[in-house]
Amino acid sequence: MLESSVSDAFRGTRVLITGGLGFIGSNLAIALVRAGASVTVLDAMIEGMGGNTFNIDPVRDSVAINFSDIRDESSMNYIVRGKDYIFHLAGQNDHVLSLSNPFPDIDINIKGAAVLLEACKRYNRDVRLVYTGTRGEYGPAVSLPVSEDAPINPKGIYELSSVTAQMLFRIYHHNHGVRSITLRLTNIYGERAQMRHDRFGVANWFVRQALDDRTVKVFGDGSILRDFLYVGDTTDAILMCAQCEGAYGHVFNVGNDKPSSFLELAKTVVELARSGRWELAPFTPERAAQEPGHFYSDITKIRTIVNWAPSTSLSDGMGRTLDFYRKHRERYW
Amino acid sequence: MLESSVSDAFRGTRVLITGGLGFIGSNLAIALVRAGASVTVLDAMIEGMGGNTFNIDPVRDSVAINFSDIRDESSMNYIVRGKDYIFHLAGQNDHVLSLSNPFPDIDINIKGAAVLLEACKRYNRDVRLVYTGTRGEYGPAVSLPVSEDAPINPKGIYELSSVTAQMLFRIYHHNHGVRSITLRLTNIYGERAQMRHDRFGVANWFVRQALDDRTVKVFGDGSILRDFLYVGDTTDAILMCAQCEGAYGHVFNVGNDKPSSFLELAKTVVELARSGRWELAPFTPERAAQEPGHFYSDITKIRTIVNWAPSTSLSDGMGRTLDFYRKHRERYW
Repeated sequence: MLESSVSDAFRGTRVLITGGLGFIGSNLAIALVRAGASVTVLDAMIEGMGGNTFNIDPVRDSVAINFSDIRDESSMNYIVRGKDYIFHLAGQNDHVLSLSNPFPDIDINIKGAAVLLEACKRYNRDVRLVYTGTRGEYGPAVSLPVSEDAPINPKGIYELSSVTAQMLFRIYHHNHGVRSITLRLTNIYGERAQMRHDRFGVANWFVRQALDDRTVKVFGDGSILRDFLYVGDTTDAILMCAQCEGAYGHVFNVGNDKPSSFLELAKTVVELARSGRWELAPFTPERAAQEPGHFYSDITKIRTIVNWAPSTSLSDGMGRTLDFYRKHRERYW
Repeated sequence: MLESSVSDAFRGTRVLITGGLGFIGSNLAIALVRAGASVTVLDAMIEGMGGNTFNIDPVRDSVAINFSDIRDESSMNYIVRGKDYIFHLAGQNDHVLSLSNPFPDIDINIKGAAVLLEACKRYNRDVRLVYTGTRGEYGPAVSLPVSEDAPINPKGIYELSSVTAQMLFRIYHHNHGVRSITLRLTNIYGERAQMRHDRFGVANWFVRQALDDRTVKVFGDGSILRDFLYVGDTTDAILMCAQCEGAYGHVFNVGNDKPSSFLELAKTVVELARSGRWELAPFTPERAAQEPGHFYSDITKIRTIVNWAPSTSLSDGMGRTLDFYRKHRERYW
């Protein structure tokens, strides 16, 4: 949970969240409304990408919803004006899709970021931006934990599009004074993620399988480690970064210093769900091609500069996640 | 000059050169025709980007010219078929343009590369590709000379688009078996570069200024070092890489282990031209923003694996360049 001093930083500010009806974006919108911000959520509602108007149900009367696409230059040029903060979460997140079609990643994640940045450069150079990329920018870990100065080695086009977007933000920060923070998020789980397909969000997919009383498939021998992070910790990290002057111009890992294995994840979910079961299964060739092995983030930098660290255990976070989807199953299934 | 054993490798092969009416592309086309290859040059003839039909005048009757854009999926899907080698030189090369407009870099250099790679993935997975990126991918040198494992830190969007394209080639190589070599070219000069504007190709711009009996402006104090490389050495490097089995899947610097200062370059050009003069001038703000300081490439890797090294001195290369433009001034001015 955010310290109240942090929340106070957003009181009365005007905030835009791209992808604001999606998983992390909607959690962020709720937190910002509660912190007293005037929030606009922008979402293109592209099929299969996680946008869901129910996601902002708790604050529906307090946010402005704007259905539009970040690639639409005219509407972006208008909507960025007067905003104090823009959180850029809109994106194509399916890292298997790019194996068959690279263009959505290039178009949405790269060109879309450039449209947003150009709009800010032209019409709101005083804004503060936060971009949420992926730890996939590093590719396989060369050494563990993975710090921000590890080699950049994306294994797929989704991951590459995140690298490129991150560098676009950095370039606009340095060349045009459009201030930004770029983040590399680990595997995030929690309330408000889409639950209709398994193409992104593996931890939440385990939740769905268990709640459906089905078998959670754990690829390989289940020993691969990841730093799964609860979405509430993630939105805290994003907000604490945004209000930290010393964070602008930096890239930060947003991860968990207590990694878990996929097997541990599956066992935790099945046990807390009191339904479903788990079994080991071989990797599909597509997944094997993009599977980077053990990965967990070094969060020393964000802990030091921003004073953020995760505070939610896997079982606490999963307990809340299961409660949410039990209650709102019909909105997500 | 190429060893005849190298030239023989291309006899009877079917080759496509994107950007084949441009500076390096046309020099490559001429070398490949002379080496016995069946050459198609593809060029979109975008205003200001270097395409010039006169560039292939010496081999005009021996090449197929195809006017089309690498972003055109249908024609690319067709034209890649049956080719043994594709040299991808088409691109937006103006690194100042991106300060005012990032979209041509994203569209031509990133999406264009993806269109080519998808075409090869679908219709010619046996092809061998060579991509020519820029040493600007490294940004400012952290230590000199700059080797291939130096940090990737592009300072502008043109340079970022080269990083992204390079990584796209690498990803298709590893994930889809579309074999490629990626190169990072230093400052290339020589015959067949465009001479109408100074937005790229600084060494050739010095040539034009001198031949026009004007003043060559050397920015700063002229002491900044660059590894200027003659285009004939560059095409040798590209062809020697392409026929080296052990080079596929690698990235190589193509540079010069004998760097020169901008002042030395200016003096050499003015002296050989026997016209014009030079003077020191302050950096413009735009150039200062993207000026990475001293830069010269470590070419140990390409020397070791491919057995290439530059063989043309600055005065020899500039002598040939001046002769060419003296003779063909009306085609380039």
